[in-house]
Amino acid sequence: MKALVLSSGGLDSTTALALAVKEYGHKNVISLSVSYGQKHTKELKAAEEVAKYYDVEHMFVDLTAIFKYSNCSLLTGSTEEIPHESYAEQIKKTNGQTPVSTYVPFRNGLFLSVAASIALSKDCQYIYYGAHADDAAGSAYPDCSEVFNSAINTAIYEGSGKQLTVKAPFVGKNKSDIVAIGHKLNAPYHLTWSCYEGGEKPCGKCGTCIDRAAAFKANNLKDPAL
Amino acid sequence: MKALVLSSGGLDSTTALALAVKEYGHKNVISLSVSYGQKHTKELKAAEEVAKYYDVEHMFVDLTAIFKYSNCSLLTGSTEEIPHESYAEQIKKTNGQTPVSTYVPFRNGLFLSVAASIALSKDCQYIYYGAHADDAAGSAYPDCSEVFNSAINTAIYEGSGKQLTVKAPFVGKNKSDIVAIGHKLNAPYHLTWSCYEGGEKPCGKCGTCIDRAAAFKANNLKDPAL
Repeated sequence: MKALVLSSGGLDSTTALALAVKEYGHKNVISLSVSYGQKHTKELKAAEEVAKYYDVEHMFVDLTAIFKYSNCSLLTGSTEEIPHESYAEQIKKTNGQTPVSTYVPFRNGLFLSVAASIALSKDCQYIYYGAHADDAAGSAYPDCSEVFNSAINTAIYEGSGKQLTVKAPFVGKNKSDIVAIGHKLNAPYHLTWSCYEGGEKPCGKCGTCIDRAAAFKANNLKDPAL
Repeated sequence: MKALVLSSGGLDSTTALALAVKEYGHKNVISLSVSYGQKHTKELKAAEEVAKYYDVEHMFVDLTAIFKYSNCSLLTGSTEEIPHESYAEQIKKTNGQTPVSTYVPFRNGLFLSVAASIALSKDCQYIYYGAHADDAAGSAYPDCSEVFNSAINTAIYEGSGKQLTVKAPFVGKNKSDIVAIGHKLNAPYHLTWSCYEGGEKPCGKCGTCIDRAAAFKANNLKDPAL
């Protein structure tokens, strides 16, 4: 059995990779990371380092051209600023009705589809990815919701001729649950990168920095990347 | 209202484009064609010509890198030959259990996801594509089946925050039904290209050439591209 893991270099996907390596062994795991025009290209370097740490094959795809018309605040070409507040605060402002400004148009659907095409060519039976409950809260990221996940999983299973199954082991869990799991597995969190800004060090102010800090704090752990 | 149409330069998607232009007007329609390493790059030129004919915005995305590990017989790097027989004959050989050799791994899922990401950035509410009953027969192309279509449509609707709907007007119809519809709409079939081989003229022997000829014959029409 072989698995392809969507790896962004952050906490969630690094923990997913840790689970896949434990399950299938490092020789049967491929990590895939994607450039999509994000300001925080440091995450790509982090994904590469995590792959090296686990000694798994690392693949890279560049989808920048597909997102060049989007004004999502995460993207280099955007006129929008990345909000310096928690997701909970951002969702309150949109009344939970529309995606937050850091929603990249159908990103997860596209990434999973790319993963499916590559996984089939590379004889994998599983795709792992780190979707979890916090991202799906309100309508912040509609491409993280349970109904989306269920539909895309069916699309990939059926559309691959039942050759490929998506595993999202953290659906229903939150980021502090994930950190607890990763901590037990000795996931290399010291190599990960979460911050949405393109700086040298995490800004500590964007939604993902705030959520990351809270997840370590809930586990009484120090963030080893700081 | 705006629509993005996945356009391959063949009969089905050209007819889908004709329907979209009729529904929304040419200024509100975008055609999108995709290079994926196919031997028959003539279809890309055909898609461009069809877009010019309708005076719609034409977009192009290159996904060749994603399919470079696939041995699908449609791709330039493949060691497989394109079968010179009808789909019905090919399906018989695989007992309807596995995809045919011209199945490009999760191509339709990937193309629809790319279309979704771009459609959201370009303020479209609809994606049109030319899926039809013949492609879904047996398990020839699992990413054309009704269960796949239904799941990916849900994934795109929910994953876009209900901003985007997929329309597949030919689901349940076959290629001769499509030619009948396109003929009524004066679709520019003289500009289209279907053949899977990379030749100057259609080979007349591959599955898509055979199906195309049968569809015109069933309508007592001459293929204007020959």
